[in-house]
Amino acid sequence: MKNALDLLTPARSSASSVRAKISPYLNKTTLLRSEKLDEILGAKIVVASETFQHTGSFKFRAAISVATHTTESHLVTASSGNFGAALARAAKLTHKKCTVIMPSTSSAVKIESVKSYGADVDMIDVGKVSRASRLAELAEKIPDARSCSPYDDAFVIAGNASLGFEILEALSPDVILAPVGGGGLSSGIVVARDEKKSSALVVGAEPKIANDASRSLREKKRVANESEPQTIADGARTLSLGELNFEILSDGLTEIVEVTEDEIAEAVRLLFSALHLQVEPTGALSVGALIANRAKFTNKNVVCVASGANVDAQLYAKIISS
Amino acid sequence: MKNALDLLTPARSSASSVRAKISPYLNKTTLLRSEKLDEILGAKIVVASETFQHTGSFKFRAAISVATHTTESHLVTASSGNFGAALARAAKLTHKKCTVIMPSTSSAVKIESVKSYGADVDMIDVGKVSRASRLAELAEKIPDARSCSPYDDAFVIAGNASLGFEILEALSPDVILAPVGGGGLSSGIVVARDEKKSSALVVGAEPKIANDASRSLREKKRVANESEPQTIADGARTLSLGELNFEILSDGLTEIVEVTEDEIAEAVRLLFSALHLQVEPTGALSVGALIANRAKFTNKNVVCVASGANVDAQLYAKIISS
Repeated sequence: MKNALDLLTPARSSASSVRAKISPYLNKTTLLRSEKLDEILGAKIVVASETFQHTGSFKFRAAISVATHTTESHLVTASSGNFGAALARAAKLTHKKCTVIMPSTSSAVKIESVKSYGADVDMIDVGKVSRASRLAELAEKIPDARSCSPYDDAFVIAGNASLGFEILEALSPDVILAPVGGGGLSSGIVVARDEKKSSALVVGAEPKIANDASRSLREKKRVANESEPQTIADGARTLSLGELNFEILSDGLTEIVEVTEDEIAEAVRLLFSALHLQVEPTGALSVGALIANRAKFTNKNVVCVASGANVDAQLYAKIISS
Repeated sequence: MKNALDLLTPARSSASSVRAKISPYLNKTTLLRSEKLDEILGAKIVVASETFQHTGSFKFRAAISVATHTTESHLVTASSGNFGAALARAAKLTHKKCTVIMPSTSSAVKIESVKSYGADVDMIDVGKVSRASRLAELAEKIPDARSCSPYDDAFVIAGNASLGFEILEALSPDVILAPVGGGGLSSGIVVARDEKKSSALVVGAEPKIANDASRSLREKKRVANESEPQTIADGARTLSLGELNFEILSDGLTEIVEVTEDEIAEAVRLLFSALHLQVEPTGALSVGALIANRAKFTNKNVVCVASGANVDAQLYAKIISS
């Protein structure tokens, strides 16, 4: 079996040393329990909540890892979501410039969030130019620029591994459940699990209508969704796993549970009512996997990663009141 | 100046020894920061969140204190809110019986919550019989019953002091802001502050339309609202401060900030958007006080107690989306 850590050697830095460097910037994850949640789902659940992380999601772990480990003075990324805001803040803290490419259809709230951390927003019409080509163009044009992937990057994965370390130092779970989009979070947790030599299984949770990662693991090759899936879990609308992520996950992940849109919404409501935790739909995927396949986890010690909280108030209100 | 601790002597037990006894039952408070909240409100704010406490509010501290320090086998209280659920759970954990008197108009969710912890619900028509008289009646009728006030009780206050200890062991704030209803929480924090010999000021936050405590402090005597004020902060609908609470607060509290209904709702929204924290309206009063009187707290180190999370989903959805 390949060692997930070996795949990080391009970064010439182990996940542990990355963690040591970024720890001063991080909020530790918040570990939460609820007897009601356990009763309802039939497992012994700890929610590792990244909703109180800087910028409201685990993505800040990845972003600050990139910002503190690269020498370039200008970070560029294409992200309409949490990674854009996280990278903007990480760049500010490390005195770098930052440009975030966003579709012109992005919500005002998200644009304002990125701007509030001092980054430049580069608005594109995604019907005319792809994010990838605009990213390549800007990376070429801007002096001393580093193009930053939200998931397919050794420093991103090592940054996310810091969450795995925190979980495994506090708890000895049978299973760690994490949302899967591009695979940045789950591969970070696999790396931490391997470095800790923990026996915990790492299981992914993916929207059923965006199940490219699940299919990729089954077919043992990276497959892509034909177009951006319109799942409510907008953090998992990626077309496919990253290359490095696929390498790590194809050996390191036990399986991926597919979660329907209704189950994702039910998980958001359950976290509201039983745990009093505000999560965005993507952040509820892990609990959604318990709803989708309760029998698989019965009586197990399960850590569910709640990856983020950034949800539009109108959408959140609609979900919890329906 | 009177010593708040002396007022607790009826309990023949210091707040510290109560804390030692109840600590194994408690979730520690969750201390949360948000740069955005600081920027918006102009102070250095830590939110001490009791939303992840057992039963979703600080009231469990009081309830488990009563349950572990009394010999009676049957606890009786009149509460349609958080104390009823907290006492029900505390009784279950200490193998006591529990009866909660609730108005027949209570929401199904609240009745189910109390029942789910194994307590009996005694439904009354508050138009025909007062809670107090029904409580006296039941306490008389039930063998080995203890009638439990949600606030006017030395064990309740000593239980709530455990939160003050936790705050003051982690932080050195200039001000601790806490919601005031019957005065149970704020008097507990005053007791802890005094026992710790901390210089932190304790400031109350009360709905403007239910300002009996504020008036009581000004008039140096306990005054009552004429009828139950219909504030959105339903945990602060008490008619007046408790006797013991008034004794402690009249010397120990620096002042009470009155918060309008709009400011309470704004605080709920701000905690949702800037801190990603689900609070009930009563739990948002402390942050509401910062909104109501920003100048008073500028650049100060302020701890805001977010006292609870139990809010009906429809109401919460309405507040955050308006």
